[in-house]
Amino acid sequence: MDYYGSQIGKLIEELSRLPGIGPKSAQRLAFHLINLPEEQVDHLANTMMNARHNVRYCKTCYTLTDQEECPVCRDMQRDHKTIMVVETTRDLAAYEKTGKFEGVYHVLHGAISPMLGIGPGDIKLKELMERLQGDVDEVIIATNSSLEGETTAMYISKLIKPTGIKVSRIASGVPVGGDLEYIDEVTLLRALEGRTQL
Amino acid sequence: MDYYGSQIGKLIEELSRLPGIGPKSAQRLAFHLINLPEEQVDHLANTMMNARHNVRYCKTCYTLTDQEECPVCRDMQRDHKTIMVVETTRDLAAYEKTGKFEGVYHVLHGAISPMLGIGPGDIKLKELMERLQGDVDEVIIATNSSLEGETTAMYISKLIKPTGIKVSRIASGVPVGGDLEYIDEVTLLRALEGRTQL
Repeated sequence: MDYYGSQIGKLIEELSRLPGIGPKSAQRLAFHLINLPEEQVDHLANTMMNARHNVRYCKTCYTLTDQEECPVCRDMQRDHKTIMVVETTRDLAAYEKTGKFEGVYHVLHGAISPMLGIGPGDIKLKELMERLQGDVDEVIIATNSSLEGETTAMYISKLIKPTGIKVSRIASGVPVGGDLEYIDEVTLLRALEGRTQL
Repeated sequence: MDYYGSQIGKLIEELSRLPGIGPKSAQRLAFHLINLPEEQVDHLANTMMNARHNVRYCKTCYTLTDQEECPVCRDMQRDHKTIMVVETTRDLAAYEKTGKFEGVYHVLHGAISPMLGIGPGDIKLKELMERLQGDVDEVIIATNSSLEGETTAMYISKLIKPTGIKVSRIASGVPVGGDLEYIDEVTLLRALEGRTQL
């Protein structure tokens, strides 16, 4: 990429290392940045650095936040006795977008995966068990519907059951609007097993 | 996006303003950045700012570069008497990737477009005419095969013809590997008009 001069070349190279950005998009992004007013580029760069420097785990639920405690945990209107366990902050965001969950969360930052050598000690599970010492009615396990997510869900439910706290798992099945024809067999079977009486 | 805390929310918002990056990709990028080591985020941010601050036009061909003169113009091995006129630095890069063009370039930074109010004075045309005062054999017009690109090509060829310098236009036609069935009619007609004898 010598024809660009080394600074543009370096920028394209760095941008193309970001997830989902191929060489063509990196080039387009680089030229977009170079054509923006200088202040705008500085502003974006500073936003990136500030976000990275100031983001930490919420002291209660371990979601990523820029305060000591995240907005959900600080919200006294929410039901702090119902904890939904998710793998990542993005999963939390997905449920928050529904606007229908009134409880609070616990972010594991991963899932148990013997294949990848990720054990129960590598995710925020000890921290969840500590929270359950407090006043909790129900733990809803909303890990992914993958092998790792299911393993994690099983593991957590076994840990919690002896405490007497209610444990539940979100349903798997055919997505709303999904066309049966295009849905994989495992999901179809799961939907069948999880059928509810009408 | 309150559930993220304002700094992550701001980052997602800024990233989603970049071209080709929708809200989902912006979210994925933001979390990727937040999970990177701090030095790497600082490095990317600084690369962006440095590229933006140090990039300028090549004093000869007006491509974007970080030196006074771009690597192509400084290369004494190249044929400085053959100038290819392109609309953008990315078009220059596309031809450089072929590795087959031995001449030099001139970057217009746009094309004439009466619709958008872009006239001959808004692109680097005066600068091209100044270069032609020197020792030039041929000007190859490689503006896009769009209405604006064609208008610009016509305009430039009319300006240059009186000087006696040879002017040519890159061919339009069916792309290599293109299936005739899926090619638009204008291109098909252009390919017919531009047929060469075998």
